[in-house]
Amino acid sequence: MKVVITGGTGFLGTRLARAILERGELIGASGTTEPIDEMILFDAVIPPERPDKLDKRVEIVTGDISDHDLVSQLIKGDSLSVFHFASVVSAGAEQDFDLALKVNLHGGINVLEAARAQPGLPRVVFTSSLAVFGGSAMPDTVSDDTKITPTTTYGMTKVVNELLLNDYTRKGFIDGRGARLPTVIIRPGKPNKAASGFASGVFREPLSGIVYELPVKESTRMAVAGYRTIVDGVIALHEADSKAVGDDRSLNLPSISLTVKEMIEGLKRVAGNRPLGEIVSAPDPAIQAICDGWPGREEAPRAHALGLPADNNLDSIIRAYIEDYADA
Amino acid sequence: MKVVITGGTGFLGTRLARAILERGELIGASGTTEPIDEMILFDAVIPPERPDKLDKRVEIVTGDISDHDLVSQLIKGDSLSVFHFASVVSAGAEQDFDLALKVNLHGGINVLEAARAQPGLPRVVFTSSLAVFGGSAMPDTVSDDTKITPTTTYGMTKVVNELLLNDYTRKGFIDGRGARLPTVIIRPGKPNKAASGFASGVFREPLSGIVYELPVKESTRMAVAGYRTIVDGVIALHEADSKAVGDDRSLNLPSISLTVKEMIEGLKRVAGNRPLGEIVSAPDPAIQAICDGWPGREEAPRAHALGLPADNNLDSIIRAYIEDYADA
Repeated sequence: MKVVITGGTGFLGTRLARAILERGELIGASGTTEPIDEMILFDAVIPPERPDKLDKRVEIVTGDISDHDLVSQLIKGDSLSVFHFASVVSAGAEQDFDLALKVNLHGGINVLEAARAQPGLPRVVFTSSLAVFGGSAMPDTVSDDTKITPTTTYGMTKVVNELLLNDYTRKGFIDGRGARLPTVIIRPGKPNKAASGFASGVFREPLSGIVYELPVKESTRMAVAGYRTIVDGVIALHEADSKAVGDDRSLNLPSISLTVKEMIEGLKRVAGNRPLGEIVSAPDPAIQAICDGWPGREEAPRAHALGLPADNNLDSIIRAYIEDYADA
Repeated sequence: MKVVITGGTGFLGTRLARAILERGELIGASGTTEPIDEMILFDAVIPPERPDKLDKRVEIVTGDISDHDLVSQLIKGDSLSVFHFASVVSAGAEQDFDLALKVNLHGGINVLEAARAQPGLPRVVFTSSLAVFGGSAMPDTVSDDTKITPTTTYGMTKVVNELLLNDYTRKGFIDGRGARLPTVIIRPGKPNKAASGFASGVFREPLSGIVYELPVKESTRMAVAGYRTIVDGVIALHEADSKAVGDDRSLNLPSISLTVKEMIEGLKRVAGNRPLGEIVSAPDPAIQAICDGWPGREEAPRAHALGLPADNNLDSIIRAYIEDYADA
């Protein structure tokens, strides 16, 4: 089996790649377990060095996902699975609408078209986002059956991909599944252009002993999940029985609803005697506005019904980060 | 003011053109009434002859809406309104997925991009469809807040345009409004590739003394509206106050819910002593399947709140057709 991960050298893409390589096999289009023979990590960004724990099955390819021919060359194989993670993120898409359309919308169509051209109904797992929800009529808690009316370009392009995924699956072109990701924490390294970046930074920078400039109010509420749980959830969704997923192919992944204040309390609780960098207020109205438009709470009944994993609590998420990165 | 109607030589496009020309003015982007100086009817199909009642303000242009440069040349002007009607219809889109994506999705983006490039926030009215609704979780009666999960390629492309319309409007590129059309009856002339065509044919052909082969069961329930009401509704939506439309720019247009049996009873009631062609059963499972996936009943609270028109009953719809076409 060949696995293609778009956005594959990003944080989540690389973690997913390692998790799949460690398992060594996946239930793919055949419906039975197949060994992983080949993996392509496709990304717009050239990593400064080859990420570790990627063995010789892995090829890293750098390029533009809006390049139809290139995508067609990479997403190609008799036994193929695709994890489509590549995306211009939230604040980036608000800053550059045209780039968001090019990468997220036209790039998404390229991925679907390439998968459609392969034999055997390839499984395509698309990472959507809770940012698909929004608007004046949005309820306090969103669920799988909430009407989707995004109020960001990022969210709009995500739901367009969800709709395409449904129709490509209904037509028998691919076997698509979509996972609406909550805000994934705690991302290591440098912040990206996601408006939700503070939900990682507020832990990461203090744990590194760095002063953190918090761009949002402490009352800001976010639906968050740990990266370990998200990677496991994406793999579980890939392996789920196709009929059990149903005709609406995208679903909410489980999350924990927390205010920033609760995040900071959790940090102090878990950090114990560790020295922490100070958190200072540095309001950014653009970031605040984007985050205020997102749902702070969600339910994920379809993910639970499929047996997808969920985080138990914030403390275990923070401990995982300390183990994987802060102490590593 | 310049008005561009895509799909402009189609049945609804031509009726809209005549209605706007008769009025002679519209409330446009300026928020005040402006005279109609120029009108372009853009369509893929060359009409056999120039439709009547179109004066010299009207230019008919034939071309491909997926041609970005052509669309950019036509949708151009300092004071501009666009009515975007062009679409591959339901059964046609099921038969040719690639054409549906090309015309409905990429063509739609061309229209929005061209309007975006003009000054003064052009009003763009997009004709969506109740076919956006569908799926196993669809309620018996859909409304403006029902989750949109289409089960046809036609419906999928319509809701993608709705989402784009919302975001182009939110970004301040255009002033977009979308009208979800019920099945519009009674269409004169030859049937098109719409799966809902029987809801016109079942009246039109018998009134012409022709035997009608009914492709669906008499129990099939449809949400229908008369073409006069739809044209008036589209114009009223164009003129509506932008803030009153809200952030979710598309809304259901009002309709009457009828079974085919009730349609036939209405035909006989209104026809009186007219001779009627016989209606014979000629089941088409593909047509039946598409129609069964659509909502048979809907509510349109947002249209009512905006004061958009609604049909009183089926009989007045049939009488209008007899007046406009059967007796003309």
